[in-house]
Amino acid sequence: MDKLIDLIKEKNNPTVVGLDPRLSYIPNEIRQKAIDRYSNTLKGVSYAFYLYNKEIIDIAKDIVPAVKLQAACYELYGAHGVYALEKTVEYAKSKGLYTIVDGKRNDIGSSMECYLNGYMGKTPLFEGYKKSPFDCDALTINGYMGSDCIKPFKDILKEGKDVFVLVKTSNPSSKDLQDKKLESKDSVFKEMAKLTKEWGEDLMEKYGYSRVGAVVGATFPKELKEIRKQFKEIFFLLPGYGVQGGGAKDIKPAFEYGVGGIINNSRAILCSWQKEDKLNYKDAIYKAITDMKEDILKEIKL
Amino acid sequence: MDKLIDLIKEKNNPTVVGLDPRLSYIPNEIRQKAIDRYSNTLKGVSYAFYLYNKEIIDIAKDIVPAVKLQAACYELYGAHGVYALEKTVEYAKSKGLYTIVDGKRNDIGSSMECYLNGYMGKTPLFEGYKKSPFDCDALTINGYMGSDCIKPFKDILKEGKDVFVLVKTSNPSSKDLQDKKLESKDSVFKEMAKLTKEWGEDLMEKYGYSRVGAVVGATFPKELKEIRKQFKEIFFLLPGYGVQGGGAKDIKPAFEYGVGGIINNSRAILCSWQKEDKLNYKDAIYKAITDMKEDILKEIKL
Repeated sequence: MDKLIDLIKEKNNPTVVGLDPRLSYIPNEIRQKAIDRYSNTLKGVSYAFYLYNKEIIDIAKDIVPAVKLQAACYELYGAHGVYALEKTVEYAKSKGLYTIVDGKRNDIGSSMECYLNGYMGKTPLFEGYKKSPFDCDALTINGYMGSDCIKPFKDILKEGKDVFVLVKTSNPSSKDLQDKKLESKDSVFKEMAKLTKEWGEDLMEKYGYSRVGAVVGATFPKELKEIRKQFKEIFFLLPGYGVQGGGAKDIKPAFEYGVGGIINNSRAILCSWQKEDKLNYKDAIYKAITDMKEDILKEIKL
Repeated sequence: MDKLIDLIKEKNNPTVVGLDPRLSYIPNEIRQKAIDRYSNTLKGVSYAFYLYNKEIIDIAKDIVPAVKLQAACYELYGAHGVYALEKTVEYAKSKGLYTIVDGKRNDIGSSMECYLNGYMGKTPLFEGYKKSPFDCDALTINGYMGSDCIKPFKDILKEGKDVFVLVKTSNPSSKDLQDKKLESKDSVFKEMAKLTKEWGEDLMEKYGYSRVGAVVGATFPKELKEIRKQFKEIFFLLPGYGVQGGGAKDIKPAFEYGVGGIINNSRAILCSWQKEDKLNYKDAIYKAITDMKEDILKEIKL
């Protein structure tokens, strides 16, 4: 996590812009440009996503440390959508941003290795050649299948990459399984936090956090506080700020022992132009990104 | 699940061929064909995967009811890999096979809707148009995030699609979380089976199974028996047969109340030509597929 924490400190901003494009979020002039080029097809919409992402990255690049791409939004458009994701990661990296693919991937053994190598490592070609299709900095993963999903593949992380394990997610129904109490009196999400800690044990870095972080919803401040208290070495990716209901105060516990988390916002930034009558879409995005930074920094000193 | 069960009965075969291609599984002549066309690139290997899949589908189409595609194997090759997955699903469907994408997808609300619509439903284009990039019959999902991941999207399933929720996975470390006991004395995987049942409650079909099935490893016969006993309405996708150690006897409990499951095998089929000195790769694949059917039918009567 050092790379991310360095960027957060450099930009004095612990927020990440969520590039989760949807059809209805795309400003008209970008939509028209894409339709003109590829007509109204899966490829056309994917191209619109890429163009919009590029504009957002250009606006955000000196203000935020990172972008997070919600894989589902791209996969909805099939291979063309995944290509837009690839190209967006490439562009964001070229602008010095830390890139997280929010894919919540999970599988056993060699299949999990495919996910980790595909998104962050190297893909084998014939005759020993290798290539990196995405090469992002971090991937979100779901640990339900246990340690097989990450333990055998620590070498990929040692090359300078991070993962974020779903621990307590921001949605209301996260309670269905995650809040269930175990015989030990701990909840399932606490057990997942324990596994997260264990998986990161030999991947500690200079700021005191491991390369295996956790996703904890800004919508659950009590649980966040509880997890931070017990797990000082886990860096948090914090979704749920803004539209979902989480506020700046709610994520304070993450920062109790230094720069211990990054707060995501997608919709309020991507749709900002729809709420700002007097601004063009670029200015609306700029305002949304800087407003969020200010709002967070009122509560959190880095 | 009716569509799948009908096909299982028609072919008298409860097995599914796992199309989980890897570089080392590809016969030399296919490798050469792909390199000749697209050289040794992400696109070239993806094309080799597609060619090999097509050959396997041609051999398997009259013997097996279904194919399962492990998404990780394709994503490892970026957008080109995902395109090979798209084209393979299309080809398998054209041959009348039931197609499962094994993506273990999971997310909250509108993002999960993207996954479900992307793989099995319809993708929105501009101006109200829609298109289906994958249009497969079923998707595997991970229920850690709770009912938000499936409950709001039952309409997609009502259009004739199925999902399989990870309950007790075939890997050794599935015990890390899934075997933990809750205060209720039930294990986490049993709790997940309960959720699976609940999510399928208004999606029951004529054979007595719901459209929300479960993934249970053939490597855990005791647990499989336990789950079948308590949940008669859950249809099982059973990985772990063969290389991972599960045998035909182990999956018997799934079939206690009729055709209640489908058994996956990937590696033993895709790599069959490497073990058969006297057969060309097509005959080796045919032999592996028919051997598996025979082995299973010794224990299970449909």
